[in-house]
Amino acid sequence: MKIDYYCFPCFFKQSIIAGNLAKVDDNIRLKLIKETAKLINDIDITKSPAHFTTFLHRRIREIIGRDPFEDIKREYNAISLNLYEELKSIINNSKNSLNTAYRLAISGNIIDFGIFTHIDIHETIQNTLSGSLTIDRSQELTEALMSNQKVMYLLDNTGEIVFDRVFIELLIEIGKEVTVVVKGSNIINDATMSDAIDTGITNICRVIDNGSDCVGTILEWTSPDFQKEFNEAKLIISKGQGNFETLHDHNDKKKDIFFLFKSKCKPLSKILKATKGGSFIAHSKKDYIYL
Amino acid sequence: MKIDYYCFPCFFKQSIIAGNLAKVDDNIRLKLIKETAKLINDIDITKSPAHFTTFLHRRIREIIGRDPFEDIKREYNAISLNLYEELKSIINNSKNSLNTAYRLAISGNIIDFGIFTHIDIHETIQNTLSGSLTIDRSQELTEALMSNQKVMYLLDNTGEIVFDRVFIELLIEIGKEVTVVVKGSNIINDATMSDAIDTGITNICRVIDNGSDCVGTILEWTSPDFQKEFNEAKLIISKGQGNFETLHDHNDKKKDIFFLFKSKCKPLSKILKATKGGSFIAHSKKDYIYL
Repeated sequence: MKIDYYCFPCFFKQSIIAGNLAKVDDNIRLKLIKETAKLINDIDITKSPAHFTTFLHRRIREIIGRDPFEDIKREYNAISLNLYEELKSIINNSKNSLNTAYRLAISGNIIDFGIFTHIDIHETIQNTLSGSLTIDRSQELTEALMSNQKVMYLLDNTGEIVFDRVFIELLIEIGKEVTVVVKGSNIINDATMSDAIDTGITNICRVIDNGSDCVGTILEWTSPDFQKEFNEAKLIISKGQGNFETLHDHNDKKKDIFFLFKSKCKPLSKILKATKGGSFIAHSKKDYIYL
Repeated sequence: MKIDYYCFPCFFKQSIIAGNLAKVDDNIRLKLIKETAKLINDIDITKSPAHFTTFLHRRIREIIGRDPFEDIKREYNAISLNLYEELKSIINNSKNSLNTAYRLAISGNIIDFGIFTHIDIHETIQNTLSGSLTIDRSQELTEALMSNQKVMYLLDNTGEIVFDRVFIELLIEIGKEVTVVVKGSNIINDATMSDAIDTGITNICRVIDNGSDCVGTILEWTSPDFQKEFNEAKLIISKGQGNFETLHDHNDKKKDIFFLFKSKCKPLSKILKATKGGSFIAHSKKDYIYL
Protein backbone atom coordinates (compact mmCIF):
# COMPACT_ATOMS: atom_id res chain seq x y z
CA MET A 1 0.00 0.00 0.00
CA LYS A 2 1.36 3.38 -1.01
CA ILE A 3 0.98 6.53 1.03
CA ASP A 4 -2.32 8.34 0.55
CA TYR A 5 -2.73 12.10 1.05
CA TYR A 6 -4.98 11.46 4.02
CA CYS A 7 -2.06 9.63 5.72
CA PHE A 8 -0.36 12.98 6.40
CA PRO A 9 -2.81 14.32 8.99
CA CYS A 10 -2.57 10.88 10.64
CA PHE A 11 1.24 11.04 10.88
CA PHE A 12 0.81 14.16 13.02
CA LYS A 13 -1.89 12.46 15.10
CA GLN A 14 0.61 9.69 15.84
CA SER A 15 3.23 12.13 17.13
CA ILE A 16 0.54 13.92 19.19
CA ILE A 17 -0.66 10.64 20.71
CA ALA A 18 2.93 9.66 21.56
CA GLY A 19 3.42 13.05 23.26
CA ASN A 20 0.15 12.62 25.18
CA LEU A 21 1.09 9.16 26.41
CA ALA A 22 4.58 10.26 27.46
CA LYS A 23 3.12 13.39 29.15
CA VAL A 24 5.96 15.51 27.75
CA ASP A 25 6.11 19.30 28.17
CA ASP A 26 5.07 21.84 25.55
CA ASN A 27 8.60 22.30 24.17
CA ILE A 28 8.95 18.59 23.46
CA ARG A 29 5.45 18.46 21.99
CA LEU A 30 6.32 21.22 19.52
CA LYS A 31 9.62 19.47 18.74
CA LEU A 32 7.67 16.28 17.93
CA ILE A 33 5.45 18.24 15.51
CA LYS A 34 8.36 20.00 13.83
CA GLU A 35 10.37 16.80 13.48
CA THR A 36 7.34 15.08 11.92
CA ALA A 37 7.14 17.98 9.45
CA LYS A 38 10.91 17.70 8.71
CA LEU A 39 10.65 13.96 8.04
CA ILE A 40 7.81 14.66 5.58
CA ASN A 41 10.23 16.79 3.53
CA ASP A 42 12.25 13.65 2.77
CA ILE A 43 9.35 11.21 2.49
CA ASP A 44 9.38 8.47 -0.16
CA ILE A 45 5.73 8.21 -1.18
CA THR A 46 6.37 5.12 -3.32
CA LYS A 47 6.78 3.17 -0.06
CA SER A 48 4.04 2.14 2.37
CA PRO A 49 2.81 4.31 5.26
CA ALA A 50 4.46 1.66 7.49
CA HIS A 51 7.92 2.60 6.12
CA PHE A 52 7.40 6.23 7.05
CA THR A 53 5.87 5.53 10.46
CA THR A 54 8.84 3.29 11.30
CA PHE A 55 11.18 6.28 10.73
CA LEU A 56 8.73 8.57 12.50
CA HIS A 57 8.45 6.46 15.66
CA ARG A 58 12.24 5.97 15.82
CA ARG A 59 12.58 9.76 15.86
CA ILE A 60 9.72 10.09 18.40
CA ARG A 61 11.49 7.66 20.75
CA GLU A 62 14.78 9.56 20.32
CA ILE A 63 13.17 12.92 21.13
CA ILE A 64 11.18 11.64 24.11
CA GLY A 65 14.18 9.63 25.31
CA ARG A 66 12.14 6.49 25.96
CA ASP A 67 9.32 4.40 24.51
CA PRO A 68 6.07 6.40 25.03
CA PHE A 69 3.96 3.25 24.59
CA GLU A 70 5.66 1.25 27.35
CA ASP A 71 3.01 1.79 30.04
CA ILE A 72 -0.03 1.43 27.80
CA LYS A 73 1.32 -1.83 26.37
CA ARG A 74 1.54 -3.30 29.86
CA GLU A 75 -1.95 -1.98 30.65
CA TYR A 76 -3.47 -3.50 27.50
CA ASN A 77 -1.89 -6.88 28.22
CA ALA A 78 -3.25 -6.83 31.76
CA ILE A 79 -6.79 -5.86 30.67
CA SER A 80 -6.79 -8.54 27.99
CA LEU A 81 -5.46 -11.24 30.31
CA ASN A 82 -8.57 -10.62 32.42
CA LEU A 83 -10.60 -11.64 29.38
CA TYR A 84 -8.65 -14.86 28.79
CA GLU A 85 -11.06 -17.28 30.53
CA GLU A 86 -14.04 -15.64 28.82
CA LEU A 87 -12.36 -15.98 25.41
CA LYS A 88 -11.57 -19.63 26.08
CA SER A 89 -15.18 -20.36 27.03
CA ILE A 90 -16.48 -18.59 23.88
CA ILE A 91 -14.36 -20.98 21.82
CA ASN A 92 -15.26 -24.05 23.93
CA ASN A 93 -18.97 -23.31 23.63
CA SER A 94 -18.97 -22.63 19.91
CA LYS A 95 -20.09 -25.06 17.20
CA ASN A 96 -17.21 -24.21 14.89
CA SER A 97 -14.30 -23.47 17.17
CA LEU A 98 -11.82 -22.65 14.37
CA ASN A 99 -14.13 -20.05 12.82
CA THR A 100 -14.83 -18.61 16.24
CA ALA A 101 -11.09 -18.39 16.92
CA TYR A 102 -10.52 -16.54 13.60
CA ARG A 103 -13.14 -14.00 14.52
CA LEU A 104 -11.94 -13.57 18.10
CA ALA A 105 -8.42 -12.96 16.79
CA ILE A 106 -9.82 -10.29 14.45
CA SER A 107 -11.87 -8.66 17.21
CA GLY A 108 -8.69 -8.34 19.32
CA ASN A 109 -7.26 -6.20 16.52
CA ILE A 110 -9.51 -3.37 17.74
CA ILE A 111 -7.03 -2.93 20.61
CA ASP A 112 -4.85 -0.22 19.21
CA PHE A 113 -3.42 2.92 20.76
CA GLY A 114 -6.77 4.69 20.68
CA ILE A 115 -9.45 4.45 23.33
CA PHE A 116 -9.93 0.99 24.75
CA THR A 117 -12.43 0.10 27.44
CA HIS A 118 -14.12 -3.10 28.55
CA ILE A 119 -17.34 -1.92 26.93
CA ASP A 120 -15.66 -1.34 23.56
CA ILE A 121 -14.03 -4.74 23.50
CA HIS A 122 -17.14 -6.68 24.50
CA GLU A 123 -19.19 -4.90 21.86
CA THR A 124 -16.46 -5.52 19.27
CA ILE A 125 -16.29 -9.23 20.16
CA GLN A 126 -20.05 -9.62 19.76
CA ASN A 127 -20.14 -7.66 16.50
CA THR A 128 -17.18 -9.52 15.02
CA LEU A 129 -18.52 -12.94 16.04
CA SER A 130 -21.94 -12.35 14.51
CA GLY A 131 -21.30 -9.75 11.77
CA SER A 132 -20.20 -10.20 8.19
CA LEU A 133 -16.61 -9.93 7.01
CA THR A 134 -15.71 -7.62 4.11
CA ILE A 135 -13.47 -10.38 2.73
CA ASP A 136 -14.06 -13.86 4.12
CA ARG A 137 -11.51 -16.53 3.18
CA SER A 138 -12.20 -18.56 6.32
CA GLN A 139 -12.94 -21.68 4.28
CA GLU A 140 -9.60 -21.39 2.46
CA LEU A 141 -7.85 -20.80 5.79
CA THR A 142 -9.40 -23.95 7.28
CA GLU A 143 -8.40 -25.95 4.18
CA ALA A 144 -4.84 -24.59 4.41
CA LEU A 145 -4.69 -25.54 8.08
CA MET A 146 -5.87 -29.06 7.27
CA SER A 147 -3.08 -29.53 4.72
CA ASN A 148 -0.18 -27.90 6.59
CA GLN A 149 1.55 -29.11 9.73
CA LYS A 150 3.48 -25.91 10.37
CA VAL A 151 2.02 -22.45 10.89
CA MET A 152 3.89 -19.16 11.19
CA TYR A 153 1.83 -16.61 13.14
CA LEU A 154 2.78 -12.91 12.87
CA LEU A 155 1.54 -11.05 15.94
CA ASP A 156 0.45 -7.43 15.96
CA ASN A 157 -0.49 -5.41 19.07
CA THR A 158 -0.16 -5.95 22.79
CA GLY A 159 -3.50 -6.76 24.42
CA GLU A 160 -4.64 -8.26 21.11
CA ILE A 161 -2.06 -11.02 21.58
CA VAL A 162 -4.19 -12.59 24.36
CA PHE A 163 -6.88 -13.08 21.68
CA ASP A 164 -4.19 -14.61 19.46
CA ARG A 165 -3.13 -16.89 22.32
CA VAL A 166 -6.53 -18.62 22.50
CA PHE A 167 -6.42 -19.11 18.71
CA ILE A 168 -2.85 -20.46 18.89
CA GLU A 169 -3.84 -22.83 21.73
CA LEU A 170 -6.58 -24.23 19.50
CA LEU A 171 -4.06 -24.67 16.66
CA ILE A 172 -1.78 -26.58 19.01
CA GLU A 173 -4.74 -28.71 20.23
CA ILE A 174 -5.45 -29.78 16.65
CA GLY A 175 -1.81 -30.77 16.26
CA LYS A 176 -0.21 -27.80 14.54
CA GLU A 177 3.38 -26.75 15.10
CA VAL A 178 3.15 -22.98 15.56
CA THR A 179 5.98 -20.46 15.37
CA VAL A 180 4.92 -17.10 16.69
CA VAL A 181 6.71 -13.94 15.51
CA VAL A 182 7.07 -10.74 17.55
CA LYS A 183 8.89 -7.49 16.76
CA GLY A 184 12.65 -7.31 17.38
CA SER A 185 12.28 -4.14 19.42
CA ASN A 186 9.74 -1.55 20.50
CA ILE A 187 7.50 0.03 17.87
CA ILE A 188 4.19 1.71 18.76
CA ASN A 189 2.14 -0.76 20.82
CA ASP A 190 3.30 -3.84 18.92
CA ALA A 191 4.16 -7.02 20.79
CA THR A 192 7.81 -7.82 21.52
CA MET A 193 9.32 -10.87 23.24
CA SER A 194 8.62 -9.47 26.71
CA ASP A 195 4.91 -9.17 25.83
CA ALA A 196 4.87 -12.77 24.60
CA ILE A 197 6.36 -13.76 27.96
CA ASP A 198 3.91 -11.58 29.96
CA THR A 199 0.90 -13.08 28.21
CA GLY A 200 2.11 -16.66 28.47
CA ILE A 201 2.61 -17.27 24.75
CA THR A 202 6.22 -18.39 25.23
CA ASN A 203 4.88 -21.22 27.44
CA ILE A 204 2.72 -22.71 24.69
CA CYS A 205 4.86 -22.55 21.56
CA ARG A 206 8.07 -21.38 19.97
CA VAL A 207 8.36 -17.58 19.74
CA ILE A 208 10.93 -15.80 17.58
CA ASP A 209 11.46 -12.12 16.85
CA ASN A 210 11.80 -10.56 13.40
CA GLY A 211 14.94 -8.62 14.33
CA SER A 212 13.40 -5.27 13.43
CA ASP A 213 11.51 -2.30 14.87
CA CYS A 214 9.49 -1.92 11.66
CA VAL A 215 5.78 -1.19 11.54
CA GLY A 216 4.21 -4.31 10.01
CA THR A 217 6.70 -6.67 8.38
CA ILE A 218 9.10 -4.83 6.06
CA LEU A 219 11.01 -7.92 4.97
CA GLU A 220 14.23 -6.22 3.84
CA TRP A 221 14.62 -4.69 7.31
CA THR A 222 14.14 -7.92 9.22
CA SER A 223 16.98 -10.20 10.35
CA PRO A 224 18.49 -12.89 8.03
CA ASP A 225 17.34 -15.55 10.52
CA PHE A 226 13.73 -14.35 10.33
CA GLN A 227 13.88 -13.94 6.54
CA LYS A 228 15.02 -17.57 6.22
CA GLU A 229 12.10 -18.83 8.31
CA PHE A 230 9.63 -16.56 6.53
CA ASN A 231 10.82 -17.76 3.11
CA GLU A 232 10.49 -21.41 4.13
CA ALA A 233 7.02 -21.01 5.70
CA LYS A 234 4.17 -22.46 3.66
CA LEU A 235 1.30 -21.15 5.77
CA ILE A 236 1.38 -17.75 7.47
CA ILE A 237 -1.31 -16.13 9.58
CA SER A 238 -0.68 -12.39 9.59
CA LYS A 239 -2.42 -10.16 12.11
CA GLY A 240 -3.22 -6.47 11.78
CA GLN A 241 -3.24 -3.64 9.29
CA GLY A 242 0.52 -2.97 9.46
CA ASN A 243 1.33 -6.52 8.37
CA PHE A 244 -1.33 -6.31 5.63
CA GLU A 245 0.08 -2.98 4.41
CA THR A 246 3.57 -4.40 4.10
CA LEU A 247 2.85 -7.98 2.93
CA HIS A 248 -0.37 -7.87 0.85
CA ASP A 249 1.62 -7.77 -2.40
CA HIS A 250 4.02 -10.55 -1.39
CA ASN A 251 3.98 -12.59 -4.57
CA ASP A 252 5.16 -16.07 -3.55
CA LYS A 253 2.90 -18.67 -5.13
CA LYS A 254 4.31 -21.43 -2.90
CA LYS A 255 3.07 -19.68 0.20
CA ASP A 256 -0.40 -19.03 1.66
CA ILE A 257 -0.62 -15.86 3.73
CA PHE A 258 -3.92 -15.18 5.50
CA PHE A 259 -4.44 -11.63 6.72
CA LEU A 260 -6.72 -11.30 9.74
CA PHE A 261 -7.35 -7.66 10.59
CA LYS A 262 -9.66 -4.73 10.99
CA SER A 263 -9.20 -1.77 8.64
CA LYS A 264 -8.54 1.22 10.86
CA CYS A 265 -8.02 4.17 8.56
CA LYS A 266 -9.98 5.94 5.86
CA PRO A 267 -7.53 5.47 2.94
CA LEU A 268 -7.28 1.69 3.41
CA SER A 269 -11.00 1.30 4.09
CA LYS A 270 -11.74 3.21 0.89
CA ILE A 271 -9.37 1.03 -1.17
CA LEU A 272 -10.83 -2.16 0.31
CA LYS A 273 -14.42 -0.91 -0.05
CA ALA A 274 -14.94 -1.45 3.67
CA THR A 275 -16.52 0.61 6.37
CA LYS A 276 -13.90 1.91 8.82
CA GLY A 277 -13.40 -0.93 11.28
CA GLY A 278 -14.42 -3.53 8.70
CA SER A 279 -13.14 -7.07 9.36
CA PHE A 280 -11.09 -9.19 6.98
CA ILE A 281 -9.78 -12.68 6.40
CA ALA A 282 -7.91 -12.06 3.15
CA HIS A 283 -5.78 -14.61 1.29
CA SER A 284 -2.57 -13.73 -0.56
CA LYS A 285 -3.40 -16.05 -3.47
CA LYS A 286 -6.96 -14.86 -3.96
CA ASP A 287 -6.82 -11.27 -2.77
CA TYR A 288 -3.44 -10.23 -4.11
CA ILE A 289 -3.73 -6.55 -4.81
CA TYR A 290 -1.23 -3.89 -5.66
CA LEU A 291 -2.30 -0.85 -3.68
CA MET B 1 -6.83 31.50 20.52
CA LYS B 2 -3.40 29.93 20.34
CA ILE B 3 -2.50 26.97 18.19
CA ASP B 4 -3.34 23.59 19.68
CA TYR B 5 -1.46 20.39 18.84
CA TYR B 6 -4.57 19.01 17.18
CA CYS B 7 -4.49 21.97 14.75
CA PHE B 8 -1.53 20.38 12.92
CA PRO B 9 -3.38 17.42 11.40
CA CYS B 10 -6.05 19.94 10.36
CA PHE B 11 -3.54 22.17 8.55
CA PHE B 12 -2.74 19.19 6.33
CA LYS B 13 -6.44 18.46 5.82
CA GLN B 14 -6.84 22.02 4.55
CA SER B 15 -4.10 21.62 1.95
CA ILE B 16 -5.59 18.24 0.92
CA ILE B 17 -9.08 19.75 0.55
CA ALA B 18 -7.65 22.62 -1.54
CA GLY B 19 -5.90 20.07 -3.78
CA ASN B 20 -9.12 18.05 -4.10
CA LEU B 21 -11.18 21.10 -5.06
CA ALA B 22 -8.61 22.28 -7.62
CA LYS B 23 -8.30 18.72 -9.01
CA VAL B 24 -4.51 19.09 -9.24
CA ASP B 25 -2.22 16.23 -10.27
CA ASP B 26 -0.24 14.04 -7.86
CA ASN B 27 2.95 16.12 -8.14
CA ILE B 28 1.14 19.28 -7.09
CA ARG B 29 -0.64 17.41 -4.28
CA LEU B 30 2.68 16.25 -2.88
CA LYS B 31 4.08 19.77 -3.25
CA LEU B 32 1.11 21.10 -1.23
CA ILE B 33 1.86 18.60 1.55
CA LYS B 34 5.60 19.34 1.59
CA GLU B 35 5.06 23.09 1.59
CA THR B 36 2.61 22.75 4.49
CA ALA B 37 5.32 20.80 6.34
CA LYS B 38 7.92 23.50 5.50
CA LEU B 39 5.68 26.29 6.79
CA ILE B 40 5.25 24.35 10.05
CA ASN B 41 9.03 24.56 10.57
CA ASP B 42 8.70 28.35 10.91
CA ILE B 43 5.37 28.43 12.73
CA ASP B 44 4.76 30.96 15.51
CA ILE B 45 2.60 29.03 17.97
CA THR B 46 1.96 32.10 20.10
CA LYS B 47 -0.34 33.36 17.31
CA SER B 48 -3.79 32.05 16.41
CA PRO B 49 -4.42 29.17 13.98
CA ALA B 50 -5.90 31.87 11.71
CA HIS B 51 -2.47 33.54 11.38
CA PHE B 52 -0.91 30.29 10.19
CA THR B 53 -3.77 29.35 7.85
CA THR B 54 -3.56 32.79 6.24
CA PHE B 55 0.10 32.07 5.32
CA LEU B 56 -0.80 28.50 4.39
CA HIS B 57 -3.61 29.44 2.00
CA ARG B 58 -1.48 32.16 0.37
CA ARG B 59 1.11 29.48 -0.41
CA ILE B 60 -1.60 27.04 -1.55
CA ARG B 61 -2.93 29.64 -4.02
CA GLU B 62 0.62 30.32 -5.27
CA ILE B 63 1.33 26.62 -5.86
CA ILE B 64 -2.01 25.88 -7.53
CA GLY B 65 -1.79 29.11 -9.52
CA ARG B 66 -5.39 30.12 -8.77
CA ASP B 67 -7.96 30.17 -6.00
CA PRO B 68 -9.05 26.55 -5.44
CA PHE B 69 -12.26 27.67 -3.70
CA GLU B 70 -13.53 29.82 -6.58
CA ASP B 71 -16.03 27.33 -7.98
CA ILE B 72 -17.35 26.06 -4.66
CA LYS B 73 -17.93 29.61 -3.42
CA ARG B 74 -20.14 30.32 -6.43
CA GLU B 75 -21.94 27.00 -5.90
CA TYR B 76 -22.60 27.70 -2.20
CA ASN B 77 -23.98 31.15 -2.98
CA ALA B 78 -26.30 29.69 -5.61
CA ILE B 79 -27.58 26.91 -3.32
CA SER B 80 -28.17 29.38 -0.50
CA LEU B 81 -29.94 31.89 -2.71
CA ASN B 82 -32.47 29.13 -3.44
CA LEU B 83 -33.20 29.11 0.31
CA TYR B 84 -33.69 32.88 0.51
CA GLU B 85 -37.53 32.93 0.33
CA GLU B 86 -37.77 30.09 2.84
CA LEU B 87 -35.44 31.93 5.27
CA LYS B 88 -37.53 35.11 4.90
CA SER B 89 -40.74 33.24 5.64
CA ILE B 90 -39.20 31.58 8.73
CA ILE B 91 -38.46 35.05 10.10
CA ASN B 92 -41.84 36.49 9.04
CA ASN B 93 -43.71 33.63 10.72
CA SER B 94 -41.76 33.71 13.96
CA LYS B 95 -42.90 35.27 17.22
CA ASN B 96 -39.52 36.81 17.98
CA SER B 97 -38.08 37.72 14.62
CA LEU B 98 -34.79 39.07 15.98
CA ASN B 99 -34.03 35.91 17.91
CA THR B 100 -34.98 33.81 14.91
CA ALA B 101 -32.67 35.91 12.73
CA TYR B 102 -29.77 35.38 15.18
CA ARG B 103 -30.25 31.64 15.04
CA LEU B 104 -30.68 31.51 11.27
CA ALA B 105 -27.42 33.45 10.90
CA ILE B 106 -25.70 30.92 13.17
CA SER B 107 -27.17 27.95 11.28
CA GLY B 108 -25.74 29.37 8.03
CA ASN B 109 -22.30 29.08 9.64
CA ILE B 110 -22.49 25.32 9.00
CA ILE B 111 -21.75 26.10 5.35
CA ASP B 112 -18.03 25.64 5.29
CA PHE B 113 -15.75 23.90 2.85
CA GLY B 114 -16.84 20.45 3.99
CA ILE B 115 -19.85 18.57 2.70
CA PHE B 116 -22.92 20.68 2.21
CA THR B 117 -26.25 19.39 0.98
CA HIS B 118 -29.83 20.58 1.19
CA ILE B 119 -30.54 17.87 3.77
CA ASP B 120 -27.66 19.02 6.01
CA ILE B 121 -28.70 22.64 5.93
CA HIS B 122 -32.41 22.01 6.61
CA GLU B 123 -31.53 19.77 9.53
CA THR B 124 -29.07 22.37 10.83
CA ILE B 125 -31.65 25.15 10.54
CA GLN B 126 -34.21 23.15 12.51
CA ASN B 127 -31.70 22.11 15.16
CA THR B 128 -30.30 25.62 15.56
CA LEU B 129 -33.76 27.22 15.74
CA SER B 130 -35.01 24.86 18.43
CA GLY B 131 -31.84 23.71 20.22
CA SER B 132 -29.92 25.30 23.05
CA LEU B 133 -26.90 27.54 22.59
CA THR B 134 -23.66 26.79 24.46
CA ILE B 135 -23.35 30.52 25.22
CA ASP B 136 -26.52 32.59 24.74
CA ARG B 137 -26.13 36.37 24.94
CA SER B 138 -29.16 36.98 22.72
CA GLN B 139 -30.76 39.21 25.33
CA GLU B 140 -27.63 41.39 25.55
CA LEU B 141 -27.46 41.51 21.75
CA THR B 142 -31.08 42.71 21.54
CA GLU B 143 -30.41 45.34 24.22
CA ALA B 144 -27.30 46.51 22.36
CA LEU B 145 -29.30 46.75 19.13
CA MET B 146 -31.95 48.82 20.90
CA SER B 147 -29.37 51.34 22.12
CA ASN B 148 -27.19 51.62 18.99
CA GLN B 149 -28.12 53.14 15.64
CA LYS B 150 -25.08 51.81 13.78
CA VAL B 151 -24.08 48.16 13.38
CA MET B 152 -20.90 46.78 11.84
CA TYR B 153 -21.47 43.24 10.53
CA LEU B 154 -18.39 41.07 9.80
CA LEU B 155 -19.30 38.40 7.27
CA ASP B 156 -17.75 34.94 7.14
CA ASN B 157 -18.36 32.34 4.41
CA THR B 158 -20.02 32.38 1.02
CA GLY B 159 -23.40 30.66 1.07
CA GLU B 160 -23.75 31.58 4.73
CA ILE B 161 -23.97 35.24 3.66
CA VAL B 162 -27.50 34.65 2.31
CA PHE B 163 -28.50 33.75 5.89
CA ASP B 164 -26.76 36.96 7.02
CA ARG B 165 -28.68 38.91 4.37
CA VAL B 166 -32.08 38.06 5.87
CA PHE B 167 -30.77 39.10 9.30
CA ILE B 168 -29.34 42.34 7.89
CA GLU B 169 -32.64 43.08 6.11
CA LEU B 170 -34.41 42.77 9.46
CA LEU B 171 -31.85 45.13 11.04
CA ILE B 172 -32.54 47.66 8.28
CA GLU B 173 -36.32 47.24 8.73
CA ILE B 174 -35.98 48.14 12.40
CA GLY B 175 -34.06 51.26 11.43
CA LYS B 176 -30.41 50.26 11.85
CA GLU B 177 -27.62 51.64 9.70
CA VAL B 178 -25.60 48.55 8.80
CA THR B 179 -22.07 48.44 7.42
CA VAL B 180 -21.19 45.00 6.15
CA VAL B 181 -17.54 43.90 5.98
CA VAL B 182 -16.11 41.39 3.50
CA LYS B 183 -12.55 40.18 2.96
CA GLY B 184 -10.22 42.30 0.85
CA SER B 185 -9.29 39.34 -1.34
CA ASN B 186 -9.78 35.59 -1.67
CA ILE B 187 -9.18 33.38 1.37
CA ILE B 188 -10.67 29.89 1.68
CA ASN B 189 -14.43 30.17 1.02
CA ASP B 190 -14.82 33.54 2.75
CA ALA B 191 -17.02 36.21 1.22
CA THR B 192 -15.43 39.00 -0.82
CA MET B 193 -17.06 42.01 -2.51
CA SER B 194 -18.06 39.96 -5.56
CA ASP B 195 -19.95 37.53 -3.28
CA ALA B 196 -21.73 40.44 -1.61
CA ILE B 197 -22.76 41.62 -5.08
CA ASP B 198 -23.82 38.10 -6.22
CA THR B 199 -26.05 37.60 -3.17
CA GLY B 200 -27.61 41.07 -3.36
CA ILE B 201 -26.13 42.42 -0.12
CA THR B 202 -24.66 45.47 -1.87
CA ASN B 203 -28.24 46.44 -2.86
CA ILE B 204 -29.47 46.64 0.73
CA CYS B 205 -26.66 48.35 2.65
CA ARG B 206 -23.15 49.74 2.58
CA VAL B 207 -20.49 47.05 2.05
CA ILE B 208 -16.78 47.66 2.66
CA ASP B 209 -13.80 45.33 2.54
CA ASN B 210 -11.19 44.87 5.25
CA GLY B 211 -8.27 45.22 2.84
CA SER B 212 -6.81 41.84 3.76
CA ASP B 213 -6.76 38.17 2.78
CA CYS B 214 -6.55 37.11 6.43
CA VAL B 215 -8.49 34.23 7.96
CA GLY B 216 -10.86 35.86 10.46
CA THR B 217 -10.04 39.49 11.26
CA ILE B 218 -6.33 39.97 12.08
CA LEU B 219 -6.58 43.68 12.74
CA GLU B 220 -2.93 44.59 12.19
CA TRP B 221 -3.12 43.14 8.68
CA THR B 222 -6.27 45.00 7.66
CA SER B 223 -6.28 48.34 5.82
CA PRO B 224 -6.02 51.66 7.71
CA ASP B 225 -9.48 52.59 6.37
CA PHE B 226 -11.03 49.46 7.83
CA GLN B 227 -9.12 49.82 11.12
CA LYS B 228 -10.52 53.37 11.48
CA GLU B 229 -14.11 52.16 10.99
CA PHE B 230 -13.57 49.16 13.26
CA ASN B 231 -12.13 51.34 16.03
CA GLU B 232 -15.06 53.75 15.81
CA ALA B 233 -17.73 51.02 15.76
CA LYS B 234 -19.70 50.66 18.99
CA LEU B 235 -21.62 47.52 18.06
CA ILE B 236 -20.15 44.72 15.97
CA ILE B 237 -21.76 41.47 14.95
CA SER B 238 -19.00 39.02 14.10
CA LYS B 239 -19.78 35.82 12.20
CA GLY B 240 -17.85 32.57 12.25
CA GLN B 241 -15.07 30.79 14.06
CA GLY B 242 -12.23 32.62 12.26
CA ASN B 243 -13.49 36.00 13.46
CA PHE B 244 -13.97 34.60 16.97
CA GLU B 245 -10.44 33.15 16.97
CA THR B 246 -8.91 36.48 16.04
CA LEU B 247 -11.16 38.92 17.94
CA HIS B 248 -12.36 37.15 21.12
CA ASP B 249 -9.65 38.83 23.18
CA HIS B 250 -10.24 42.30 21.74
CA ASN B 251 -10.23 44.32 24.90
CA ASP B 252 -12.07 47.55 24.06
CA LYS B 253 -14.55 48.35 26.81
CA LYS B 254 -16.28 50.99 24.65
CA LYS B 255 -17.26 48.39 22.11
CA ASP B 256 -19.73 45.49 22.12
CA ILE B 257 -18.74 42.60 19.87
CA PHE B 258 -21.22 39.74 19.54
CA PHE B 259 -19.83 36.53 18.10
CA LEU B 260 -22.36 34.36 16.28
CA PHE B 261 -20.83 31.06 15.21
CA LYS B 262 -20.69 27.30 15.35
CA SER B 263 -17.55 25.71 16.80
CA LYS B 264 -16.15 23.51 14.08
CA CYS B 265 -13.00 21.97 15.48
CA LYS B 266 -12.07 19.79 18.43
CA PRO B 267 -9.57 22.14 20.12
CA LEU B 268 -11.97 25.11 20.18
CA SER B 269 -14.94 22.95 21.16
CA LYS B 270 -12.89 21.56 24.04
CA ILE B 271 -11.87 25.02 25.25
CA LEU B 272 -15.44 26.31 25.02
CA LYS B 273 -16.85 23.15 26.62
CA ALA B 274 -19.09 22.64 23.60
CA THR B 275 -19.93 19.65 21.50
CA LYS B 276 -18.40 19.92 18.02
CA GLY B 277 -20.88 22.01 16.04
CA GLY B 278 -22.13 23.76 19.18
CA SER B 279 -23.79 27.16 18.61
CA PHE B 280 -22.78 30.45 20.23
CA ILE B 281 -23.88 34.02 20.75
CA ALA B 282 -20.91 35.23 22.80
CA HIS B 283 -20.35 38.80 24.00
CA SER B 284 -16.91 40.44 24.19
CA LYS B 285 -17.76 42.15 27.51
CA LYS B 286 -19.14 39.06 29.23
CA ASP B 287 -17.28 36.23 27.53
CA TYR B 288 -13.84 37.79 27.20
CA ILE B 289 -11.42 34.92 27.40
CA TYR B 290 -7.75 34.59 26.71
CA LEU B 291 -7.36 31.29 24.89
